[in-house]
Amino acid sequence: MSGIFGPALMARLENFARHSADAPALTRLYLTREHRAAADQLLIWMREAGMEAHVDAAGTVVGRYEGLAPNQPALLLGSHIDTVRNAGRYDGNLGVLAAVTAVAELNRRGERLPYAIEVLGFGDEEGVRFPVTLTGSRAVAGTLAPDAMAARDRDGVTLGEALKLFGGDPARLDAVARDPAKVLGFVEVHIEQGPVLESLNLPLGIVTAINGASRYAVTITGQAGHAGTVPMGLRRDALAAAAEMVLAVEARGGAEPDLVATVGRIEAKPGAINVIPGQVTFTIDLRSPSDDSRRQAAADLAETLTAIAGRRGVTLELRQTHDAAAARCHPGLMRQLDQAVARAGLSIHRLPSGAGHDAMALAALCPIAMLFVRCKGGVSHHPAESITGPDADLAVAVLLDFLRRFEPVSPIAPYPAKGPLS
Amino acid sequence: MSGIFGPALMARLENFARHSADAPALTRLYLTREHRAAADQLLIWMREAGMEAHVDAAGTVVGRYEGLAPNQPALLLGSHIDTVRNAGRYDGNLGVLAAVTAVAELNRRGERLPYAIEVLGFGDEEGVRFPVTLTGSRAVAGTLAPDAMAARDRDGVTLGEALKLFGGDPARLDAVARDPAKVLGFVEVHIEQGPVLESLNLPLGIVTAINGASRYAVTITGQAGHAGTVPMGLRRDALAAAAEMVLAVEARGGAEPDLVATVGRIEAKPGAINVIPGQVTFTIDLRSPSDDSRRQAAADLAETLTAIAGRRGVTLELRQTHDAAAARCHPGLMRQLDQAVARAGLSIHRLPSGAGHDAMALAALCPIAMLFVRCKGGVSHHPAESITGPDADLAVAVLLDFLRRFEPVSPIAPYPAKGPLS
Repeated sequence: MSGIFGPALMARLENFARHSADAPALTRLYLTREHRAAADQLLIWMREAGMEAHVDAAGTVVGRYEGLAPNQPALLLGSHIDTVRNAGRYDGNLGVLAAVTAVAELNRRGERLPYAIEVLGFGDEEGVRFPVTLTGSRAVAGTLAPDAMAARDRDGVTLGEALKLFGGDPARLDAVARDPAKVLGFVEVHIEQGPVLESLNLPLGIVTAINGASRYAVTITGQAGHAGTVPMGLRRDALAAAAEMVLAVEARGGAEPDLVATVGRIEAKPGAINVIPGQVTFTIDLRSPSDDSRRQAAADLAETLTAIAGRRGVTLELRQTHDAAAARCHPGLMRQLDQAVARAGLSIHRLPSGAGHDAMALAALCPIAMLFVRCKGGVSHHPAESITGPDADLAVAVLLDFLRRFEPVSPIAPYPAKGPLS
Repeated sequence: MSGIFGPALMARLENFARHSADAPALTRLYLTREHRAAADQLLIWMREAGMEAHVDAAGTVVGRYEGLAPNQPALLLGSHIDTVRNAGRYDGNLGVLAAVTAVAELNRRGERLPYAIEVLGFGDEEGVRFPVTLTGSRAVAGTLAPDAMAARDRDGVTLGEALKLFGGDPARLDAVARDPAKVLGFVEVHIEQGPVLESLNLPLGIVTAINGASRYAVTITGQAGHAGTVPMGLRRDALAAAAEMVLAVEARGGAEPDLVATVGRIEAKPGAINVIPGQVTFTIDLRSPSDDSRRQAAADLAETLTAIAGRRGVTLELRQTHDAAAARCHPGLMRQLDQAVARAGLSIHRLPSGAGHDAMALAALCPIAMLFVRCKGGVSHHPAESITGPDADLAVAVLLDFLRRFEPVSPIAPYPAKGPLS
């Protein structure tokens, strides 16, 4: 199958990247002029692929490919078409255009399936312009916060005002929310944004869950002092204590598969070469596909850090700043993706998603699944973000094969849910 | 003896602190109007104590108390009367006014010694106003850099211009340099600026050496990455590597007495909560009274850090930014101070000085010694800097006793020198 879809899809992705605030760089924030231009381009491609297409009240581009009979429940596909600043071309856009390509092939063959397909091109997955995120996908899931439209960008424009200018309708957001009875699931193709598939020499992976995440702000208070006059034995060095804690975070993250733990920021005060640090602040970011595993790791770390602080005579303040449950992918959908990957002659590899995705929001509505595509060096949110044409081709081929054999699955409610992953 | 000198000295120190740019806070930078006012006050007190007094060409206040015969070689006493911004009252000033107090007592008794005494109130020990330091003491030692007068403060005023306004004479600095044959030594009383004496419940300590210091700038380069998508096993986390190094620095510092090792600054880039740090910079400050010990510690740390970097797949750049040899105190002078301390009924405790002092510069001219006075909490360079009246009294009493029994020592050349401390 290789080679049928890849070149055209890669060309489309390149073409699509021209809709940018700062071409040849790619910056396409939610509800901007360039977002609208991209949406208009996407409407054209959807219609060429045999879909009825429109932009919904929240600014999501929606294309519907009817099944054998009209008004059948729909399997939702897609991802987002907004980007970060100075973005790569594939984050989000690949998932939308791969889905359009698969539907176009069905249409070319004159093939209808026992269910409808809808391709969704969401806005605001990145959450860059407004202090909210997943606006398009949350509207579809019916979980949009009541005050989301009041969020302001840095020029003071509200989301509601921007949405009207874009052609959306803040007054009709409720109508965007889907009836779960009419939705069979959501399947999102996305670049991995990590190095795992490349390290395994595999083009595709099946996502088990979008990781839950906990974040903490840590403050260590010791005793500042002169770096020359305070003997080692009389010190309460906040940075030495923090260093021990950073290593404890790393060790706990490495203690079980799929858990990741990161200290991304650190600051030592007063921060002079000749002064023993009296206070250090740092952050912890903990993620796991299993909420139980993540919570256990957080509890273990709180205990370890407290012990380190006690032993060193420094005080520890550990404040949680973020807590998001994992969104599990549906076992039945994962199995069907596994089988499609295997039929393409590829090894099946399942992995968690460390980054957030629209599927996270859709999990509140229906069964979800994701197909990851290998990206070069794991690099994303950067112009160097890169995938290969053959990998893009495989993603479309596997998605198409999956669609043609798709069998609806029973929802496992509620989403997101706790419990062991299949 | 306790109680004779303390109250008057403490009152003088309080009075002297009024010569400030921002009273009731204390800020007295080199060659400012308030420095001149303090110098004028000091001239008065010196003359009241029976000394001939003047301000030398470098702005140092010099008072001479002749011996039994005129023109005898002089033992130099003193410290500095400039301060940092928002300073304490005792750093520097204590050493000058304690020496004046001791001489005043000799004068009150009508007592002349077989040698002359000179009390020096240096400027520019702190190096705050101009990008040079120890200007007064270096001028006396004859080691002033030829371009020192061209240094500019932040208003663009040169040191030479400021010195003229102060009443000094940039053209006659050479005349300030002393003939080593006419100098018996330099003895500086100073607050400890560290917590050791307080922790030992001792009012006074005898300094073994002013520590040598090495400083390094360290850069660790790993691989930045998404905190959610890069598994622990595929990371090259620059901060985790740096944390291990910070602990190695701490451990090496604690591995032998009198060595201190500090990481005072650290920065992780890009410094986002959800990004694995790709680069970390930090500093190392190493000090020891023994240059051999300090150099060995630096070599050991370079090896340890290189091993950590190698094991973690990150690169290490270790750049030395500062290297100053230790200034050893003279064994004969230390012994005479020990004996005076013992005669006062106190335990003898020797300790290195982690901070720099005027004695460091004088070491190029003559044998040096320092007597440390306990300060509260080891706090210095801060308004909370504090000593007690009884401790001040003991310092004067011990200094006076030392002076009355002083016997000249043979210089051990060259200063500063390497070798084991006595």
